[in-house]
Amino acid sequence: MSEIFIGVDLGGTNIKIGCFDSELKIIGKTSVSTQADMGPDAVVSKMAQTAEELLTGENLSLDNVSAVGMGAPGPARYKEGVVIAAANMPKFKNVPIRQMLSERLGKPVIFENDANAACWGEFVLGAGKGVSDMVFFTLGTGIGGGIICDGKLVYGFADNAAELGHTIVYPGGRLCGCGQRGCVEAYASANSTAKRALEALEAGVQSSLKDVLDEKGEITCKDVYEHLAAGDELAKQITDETAKALALVCVNMLHITEPKRIVYAGGMIGAGKLLLRRIRDYFSEYIWFLKAETVEICFATLGRDAGIIGAAALAKKAFEEGQFDQQ
Amino acid sequence: MSEIFIGVDLGGTNIKIGCFDSELKIIGKTSVSTQADMGPDAVVSKMAQTAEELLTGENLSLDNVSAVGMGAPGPARYKEGVVIAAANMPKFKNVPIRQMLSERLGKPVIFENDANAACWGEFVLGAGKGVSDMVFFTLGTGIGGGIICDGKLVYGFADNAAELGHTIVYPGGRLCGCGQRGCVEAYASANSTAKRALEALEAGVQSSLKDVLDEKGEITCKDVYEHLAAGDELAKQITDETAKALALVCVNMLHITEPKRIVYAGGMIGAGKLLLRRIRDYFSEYIWFLKAETVEICFATLGRDAGIIGAAALAKKAFEEGQFDQQ
Repeated sequence: MSEIFIGVDLGGTNIKIGCFDSELKIIGKTSVSTQADMGPDAVVSKMAQTAEELLTGENLSLDNVSAVGMGAPGPARYKEGVVIAAANMPKFKNVPIRQMLSERLGKPVIFENDANAACWGEFVLGAGKGVSDMVFFTLGTGIGGGIICDGKLVYGFADNAAELGHTIVYPGGRLCGCGQRGCVEAYASANSTAKRALEALEAGVQSSLKDVLDEKGEITCKDVYEHLAAGDELAKQITDETAKALALVCVNMLHITEPKRIVYAGGMIGAGKLLLRRIRDYFSEYIWFLKAETVEICFATLGRDAGIIGAAALAKKAFEEGQFDQQ
Repeated sequence: MSEIFIGVDLGGTNIKIGCFDSELKIIGKTSVSTQADMGPDAVVSKMAQTAEELLTGENLSLDNVSAVGMGAPGPARYKEGVVIAAANMPKFKNVPIRQMLSERLGKPVIFENDANAACWGEFVLGAGKGVSDMVFFTLGTGIGGGIICDGKLVYGFADNAAELGHTIVYPGGRLCGCGQRGCVEAYASANSTAKRALEALEAGVQSSLKDVLDEKGEITCKDVYEHLAAGDELAKQITDETAKALALVCVNMLHITEPKRIVYAGGMIGAGKLLLRRIRDYFSEYIWFLKAETVEICFATLGRDAGIIGAAALAKKAFEEGQFDQQ
């Protein structure tokens, strides 16, 4: 029987599931709404059922599956497989989700932070291919991160390393949802992009975004990038601020774990080449002159599949390394 | 024959050498001036001769030695054992120092960044004992660093990770010797401490340090800390600024590699408990409220021996892991 690996990306809105062959080539994938308000038991049943249907549709069954990988947002005790709490899934409190899914499927399951899973996906099959040291950012509503040193994910002493959105770039700066001031998330997330645009318009700054606000009553990150493409000055300024904050974190990460590649994923990369170019420009401006740096700053390549690919790849790795033998 | 390990700490001013038994208990140690202006050949000869004399004095010989560890300042290609350049040793350009010492002694030699060696010493036998994730700072003339994740030193893709003194805490802030602005080194090194005191005095700030300046024509970091102990207000302000900058880096490191312990070494810890208390206070003030943090912020315990202990411990580790078998 061929060895199949399943990757699950559990989000507050959707559950994405993919099945992969032993070379991590995707066989099939699907997405269903999480309906997290139904509670953990119902969500686990839905995950299991969806995985089984996906397999059936590909003329496969659970018998073909070697292991399952699942990514989910923190905070969690990843090694134990327990979700402590989840902002978008209020009914999930201290849920032993790894064990629940494993028992429901009769398969070993590995449980991982969602940003780490996506980071691992990009590392193995995407923008991180061919390097051993990488830093990964998901620029979404908030900012998540993943760090790979010498081919291994960095977990930290309590599995909460790589909370890169909450590194402070401007002490005393903008208030972040986490309670700190000056976090990069408060300058470079999708939420912050929209919020900074709104603040500027409310302060009377002239911009084509004003029409959007008047019409829709709100501004989104997507609006900002559309008006950036159209040459709006305010959209340019906001993107510039975003790039500065991200470039400062690049400088710091270079001096901390010294990655060969820094990879950005998430909705914010919709800003396109202009954002990337500005990050690179500010990095060159800020970085020391003690030696020339060759770090590559680039966008992710796997899109929304990074999470399921990474989860499946981590399941494969754990399976091959015999990590499930004790479970 | 007992297994002896030698640890060498090569600095611009002094060479420190220690010999250790297989449990890393120190048998003897010595220090001689480097005389780096004599050039690499002479320095290597001196290191070898000093090591042999140290062994002889303990009724031992090179026959008892299993391996040698050497720490030296960067930039270097550590894996290759080549010093690229050294600020305090201008005649050292692309010197294959590991091979030179190994051939001279007829023993396998491991070569390591000096801050990494001291970090490893503290990790194995000092303030890092009992944890698997640690961050280490040497607060000296400049600021060096070491990072341990899951029991391993972090090297980065080109062996230049953990340049923690050059993480930026205040964008656009004080100019650092490296060319960047706002590096923590520009706020929290011994050099910066003395410089900030001098600037304040020149700007007319009242302080008991003024008498020192008038008498000696200069201010040192040690002066600042002596006057801090005596209650001088300017010395307090300067120490406060130092603590703020260090606390910001603690917050960032917690979110990056999530150490269980953050350890400070170097001359600056002569400021004593007051500095440590202020760092902890500012850390508590700056850190998020998403979850309670238990990171321990403390001073190193091995003093000036950390470098030779760490170098010997790395030699022992490499020896036991069979890393020298190919050399």
